[in-house]
Amino acid sequence: MKNIVLLGATGSIGVQTSDIIEANPSEFNLYAMAFGTRIDVAKPIIECLKPSIVVVKDDLVKEQLIHQIDGNISIYSGLDALNELVTQPDVDLVVNALLGSVGLKPTLAAIRAQKQIAFANKETLVTAGHLVKAEADRYGVDLLPVDSEHAAIHQCLRGESPSEIKRMVITASGGSFRDYTRDELVGVTKEDALKHPNWSMGAKITIDSATMMNKGLEVIEAHWLFDVPYAQIDVLMHKESVIHSMVEFVDQNVMAQLGTPDMRIPIQYALTYPDRTTYNLSSGLDLTSFGTLHFQDLSFDRFPCLDMAYQAGREGGSMPTVLNAANEEAVQLFLNDQIDFLGIEKAIYDELAEHQRIESPNLDTILEIDQETRKRVRRRH
Amino acid sequence: MKNIVLLGATGSIGVQTSDIIEANPSEFNLYAMAFGTRIDVAKPIIECLKPSIVVVKDDLVKEQLIHQIDGNISIYSGLDALNELVTQPDVDLVVNALLGSVGLKPTLAAIRAQKQIAFANKETLVTAGHLVKAEADRYGVDLLPVDSEHAAIHQCLRGESPSEIKRMVITASGGSFRDYTRDELVGVTKEDALKHPNWSMGAKITIDSATMMNKGLEVIEAHWLFDVPYAQIDVLMHKESVIHSMVEFVDQNVMAQLGTPDMRIPIQYALTYPDRTTYNLSSGLDLTSFGTLHFQDLSFDRFPCLDMAYQAGREGGSMPTVLNAANEEAVQLFLNDQIDFLGIEKAIYDELAEHQRIESPNLDTILEIDQETRKRVRRRH
Repeated sequence: MKNIVLLGATGSIGVQTSDIIEANPSEFNLYAMAFGTRIDVAKPIIECLKPSIVVVKDDLVKEQLIHQIDGNISIYSGLDALNELVTQPDVDLVVNALLGSVGLKPTLAAIRAQKQIAFANKETLVTAGHLVKAEADRYGVDLLPVDSEHAAIHQCLRGESPSEIKRMVITASGGSFRDYTRDELVGVTKEDALKHPNWSMGAKITIDSATMMNKGLEVIEAHWLFDVPYAQIDVLMHKESVIHSMVEFVDQNVMAQLGTPDMRIPIQYALTYPDRTTYNLSSGLDLTSFGTLHFQDLSFDRFPCLDMAYQAGREGGSMPTVLNAANEEAVQLFLNDQIDFLGIEKAIYDELAEHQRIESPNLDTILEIDQETRKRVRRRH
Repeated sequence: MKNIVLLGATGSIGVQTSDIIEANPSEFNLYAMAFGTRIDVAKPIIECLKPSIVVVKDDLVKEQLIHQIDGNISIYSGLDALNELVTQPDVDLVVNALLGSVGLKPTLAAIRAQKQIAFANKETLVTAGHLVKAEADRYGVDLLPVDSEHAAIHQCLRGESPSEIKRMVITASGGSFRDYTRDELVGVTKEDALKHPNWSMGAKITIDSATMMNKGLEVIEAHWLFDVPYAQIDVLMHKESVIHSMVEFVDQNVMAQLGTPDMRIPIQYALTYPDRTTYNLSSGLDLTSFGTLHFQDLSFDRFPCLDMAYQAGREGGSMPTVLNAANEEAVQLFLNDQIDFLGIEKAIYDELAEHQRIESPNLDTILEIDQETRKRVRRRH
């Protein structure tokens, strides 16, 4: 029985993680969960899985929640409570499904407490990959990816030697605007951008898929998770999202993981690793129902966000922090109807162009650059 | 440095194995090789790789060969020499690329001498899988598949637990007559049958691909190599032969191995296992050059040889021996223009229908049934 802490319980990954915990009562116990303000989403999870501890955003949410739930549940509020929660001795595994770089501090706290971490919060690795990686290595902690692409690569590497990797190929569905030209992107709406062709995900990642920044963040995430140089990470357009990613080895054998577009499968994989347990919340992959799978190169000119992510990753230092903060803020401005779709890439470009790169930023510097970048993006618009 | 014995050196797999040995002189030494009669093919391999021992079919071939090669090479003839050769103390790995059930005795001899075996001779496992498997388990010997399909499955199982396998999916290109109806198969020629769309292979296996018996033999081979029941082995039509086979696990994750249709890649995989070494005899897989991959169900009505193979496998005992012997002989009759293409499946059907199944045949019984079945097929035509 694994005692699980679920951070970001009311987001898309959080809710799907609670489905997996509910479906496997003999394997998992939801020891604690954390969310921001969405009591309506949190309440059924709390009632069903009865965590011992709940952490919410602030005292206001805490007061509201106290009046709505029964039972012997301790409720805390604030980020400090989050950082303390993940280090509790009873905790076996922390699912980090927080949104954005807010996931950084609890991740480092969990690593230092030597907890297994299931990682759905790619922004943490993008913004501070060198710090997270160094601490994970130091404390001997496994970072288990929950993203379908990185879960695929993780599986391709089972039983393999890292020195025998030739390259990784991350597949991209192309997002909501896959078949649009650059000209056709002018004036697309928020509603159009939020219609992902294959996956059911949160708003931030769906917009990131439409700009292809999601794939860029995944490239940087793969660099840190699997310790491979950027020159060995490729991206391939594959609109059916059946092959979730691949690893080519030096002997030209290519290993791939395939599956249905059901995020609960990689979530369960991370939660049960190194074991695999029966999954039956949806039916298995039937390749004949697809009939054909398509593959094509992906143009940096068409998707400049991907190009910027590779560049920021290669330059390293504080550049990925700026990339991520500018992107998070620009996506929020787009979702608030304050900038248009092409304004997202422009905002990121401007921040990267202006930033004076710092070689090895420490945690305080990263958090400072993150905040400053966000402020600057907001001020400009 | 691995000392290798190559059995069946002048066949398609044999010659490609010698390419791999030649390309990796610091990894492999061709300690010995065996072939039948084709001195023209053997001579350049002998001159290039300088084996210490050569075994040929009979004294006639031996005499001819002695006059054509220089150097300090011991030459022997006959099947007994073959069986003795594989047990020599200096031998690390035996590549069994013999054609047909003649590979059975040397395989058993090599297993008992605890040599690693790279297996390109599927007929041995089909005709006597229960004996080979029992001996391999008893002597703790790895059977390393050289077939692209089984090498794919072998790779999908690296780092995995056998109890977590849900099913295996062996892909089929469809062979030379993939798009023919049953009616269109009447009167097809040997030349048409020998034109495989994807792979460059020997005549026997190319005809087996056209009848789909090759896939049937592979299903039986997979049953023995990976210890899975027939109900967990599926076949899927995939005309591009890019995905070489797949394994689905209980958690619905599907692992697949992909590659170019170059048999030297699985050969090298078997020879270097558990390591992977650089391969550069051909360029790597480029999925964008394919653009699309196709998948469809495969009909037992269209391909009765596949149906017969599943049935013979499920019935077990002596039935697979009859299936294999009847098929080998019928293919030979077709290649000799003595029966037509549809006569192959008819010959196998007749032998299976007439045979009185024996539960657990020993080696002598298997060899006897093999010979009797062949005689009967020849007598009928």
